[in-house]
Amino acid sequence: MRTVYADNNATTAIAPEVLQAMMPYFTTTYYNPSSMYEQAREAAKALESARQTIADFLGGVQPDEVLFTSCATESNNNAIYGVTRANPERKHIVTSGVEHPAVFEVCKDLQRQGFEITFLPVDSSGQIDIKDFVGALRSDTLIVSIMHANNETGVIFPVQEYARITKETDSDIIFHTDATQSIGKLELNLTKEFQHVDLLSFSGHKIHAPKGIGALYIRRGTRIKPFLIGGHQEKGRRAGTENVPYIVGLARAIELARQDHDRVESRIRKMRDRMEQAFKERISHIDINGEGAPRLPNTLSVAVHYIEGEGILFQLNQYGICASSGSACTSGSLEPSHVLKAMHVRFTAAHGSVRFSLSRYTTEEDIDQIIDVFPQVVTKLRQLSPYWDQKENRPRDNITLIEPSTQD
Amino acid sequence: MRTVYADNNATTAIAPEVLQAMMPYFTTTYYNPSSMYEQAREAAKALESARQTIADFLGGVQPDEVLFTSCATESNNNAIYGVTRANPERKHIVTSGVEHPAVFEVCKDLQRQGFEITFLPVDSSGQIDIKDFVGALRSDTLIVSIMHANNETGVIFPVQEYARITKETDSDIIFHTDATQSIGKLELNLTKEFQHVDLLSFSGHKIHAPKGIGALYIRRGTRIKPFLIGGHQEKGRRAGTENVPYIVGLARAIELARQDHDRVESRIRKMRDRMEQAFKERISHIDINGEGAPRLPNTLSVAVHYIEGEGILFQLNQYGICASSGSACTSGSLEPSHVLKAMHVRFTAAHGSVRFSLSRYTTEEDIDQIIDVFPQVVTKLRQLSPYWDQKENRPRDNITLIEPSTQD
Repeated sequence: MRTVYADNNATTAIAPEVLQAMMPYFTTTYYNPSSMYEQAREAAKALESARQTIADFLGGVQPDEVLFTSCATESNNNAIYGVTRANPERKHIVTSGVEHPAVFEVCKDLQRQGFEITFLPVDSSGQIDIKDFVGALRSDTLIVSIMHANNETGVIFPVQEYARITKETDSDIIFHTDATQSIGKLELNLTKEFQHVDLLSFSGHKIHAPKGIGALYIRRGTRIKPFLIGGHQEKGRRAGTENVPYIVGLARAIELARQDHDRVESRIRKMRDRMEQAFKERISHIDINGEGAPRLPNTLSVAVHYIEGEGILFQLNQYGICASSGSACTSGSLEPSHVLKAMHVRFTAAHGSVRFSLSRYTTEEDIDQIIDVFPQVVTKLRQLSPYWDQKENRPRDNITLIEPSTQD
Repeated sequence: MRTVYADNNATTAIAPEVLQAMMPYFTTTYYNPSSMYEQAREAAKALESARQTIADFLGGVQPDEVLFTSCATESNNNAIYGVTRANPERKHIVTSGVEHPAVFEVCKDLQRQGFEITFLPVDSSGQIDIKDFVGALRSDTLIVSIMHANNETGVIFPVQEYARITKETDSDIIFHTDATQSIGKLELNLTKEFQHVDLLSFSGHKIHAPKGIGALYIRRGTRIKPFLIGGHQEKGRRAGTENVPYIVGLARAIELARQDHDRVESRIRKMRDRMEQAFKERISHIDINGEGAPRLPNTLSVAVHYIEGEGILFQLNQYGICASSGSACTSGSLEPSHVLKAMHVRFTAAHGSVRFSLSRYTTEEDIDQIIDVFPQVVTKLRQLSPYWDQKENRPRDNITLIEPSTQD
């Protein structure tokens, strides 16, 4: 059966160009870039060339502001723990209630250690009220960490604005953003609009580089401690022998994303919109999570009332379609995600959310297949759902749908 | 010019079998192993199969005792920080003065945070006096971290003995060993001789897997906190999307090391011994670092009196030979390594140490070339060395060799 991969916010296929760029470093140029001999210099050069590519992409920042890590989770951990360990005098953190676990769980860990954390609420479209943001900044605020785009809904946060406001309020507050889902998709110019962002995390595997490589932008002068300690690699800021092939792959993936960005984005957005429109026309009782908010062009999160997301995903997969209920990093849990809870997605729909996320490799044929299959699957599952019966006022067994009084 | 790669303790070439094993996960099976659909299960299966291979290799431990990390540095950081954070009631650590920076620097960091660290001294052959070890254990000792084999000299420590003594003294003390240089080279049976080891770190890139993958064995019941926090991967013990290709590669490298271990080890040992013997016969005023101690069969660290290691390495490289002065993780420093300092290598030789480290891909022809070139290089450099002149009682310019009163 033909596979339709529509889970690109979870991970992406490696681009053939990326694999090709990595191959010499898996074969002939396997040297340790820290070694002094001539042969190793080629590996060291590849490392620095990759760093330059990424520095250019981020708006012409200094190459030594780009630190390579093993993943976005490490970048996020490094950013937040690194700042708290370097600045023991302040104990307040501002973040949102819809961050990725790699930020969210770190903040909760720090809360247990005595930090005060403001988890900014979002409205039903997934957006933060700017007044809430401004009101959250305090004289003892150490770091603000707000994601650039949400992994589950695709909702984009105006972090360039938040960063500006933060610095205008108190230039000592450090501003971090997790740009894992936006890198290569949205403009990220750290010398222009995003000039007030101090720390920016991302990884390679959402943009067709492999899983296991990430980066952390650290603006010069930012007070931060290293996270991985040991050897002198990355100028003492991240110990461990450098993963040269993946670093080269990350840079190549960044180049690819940059090369034909506008054309690809426009094509992806059209496909996403076509899918969204078709769902609205063909399926009753659905909500688009994040509707009304600026969203990533590749992401469509649909809340389907009265049925379970797990069932939908299973059925979709019977037709070869790969989608997800939200974050792969929290899959396996039977609870609705903290993101949907924070958005107060209605009880009848919170368990029924499905995320389709596209990439440059998604085809119109893929979209046709999703548009063909998804409404059928929903209809079929609703016919089996006691909640649907109840909603339709058809008595069925003795199951009663009791809506809880609170939704979070 | 033909390259002779003799720096395998810094990193190794990726085995063609390892690259081949990884390729499907760079191409068709790119899915996120946490995803729920059928296609992703293949990635999840590969992950668990790799974990089983490594668990088997370690003596038939439980697969859930094997945690995948991004490198040995992360494994070491995870082990020591993870234990100190989970057990705040004890504040004393026992380690050696010759650990890799990924342990050594972590211990120094903890020392600054108020921990008491016993850095056990080594004798001139690089060995720890067992009486010193026994005497170091205290009622408030939290963790003992002693490497299995030293990266610079190849000296092997009887960690199975240390672990047994530790547990006999106080079963609550946690025993960690950094096995990065011994994995695949020495027997490491965690259900037999090494049954008292609680935590064991290693990486892939010393045994022909890529740079950027490591593992940490965590014996069931060990009190340790996660190091990377966020998603639920690795049962919540290491967040971040799993690097499936490299994990598969690590397991394949372990299999290869196991398959023809005795034959390969014997061949490597013979080549190393032939090289060592030839050096002793052809070059005056050299010491073998770690001579008299049990050593890794692939490692030869030679202290050449009266000349500089950097000069030797540069000259060797003119003939295509890649060797190093010690650890690639500390290269760039003009100081003799902390390992050689701890061994009290004589002042006239501490700067002149060169490490040759072999692998399964080293050939007799490689050894011939090293044996041919190295003595010539030493002779040439000594002719240019003021220290050598002085030693030979030939006045030269006004340089005076002043031996400092302390050697560390």
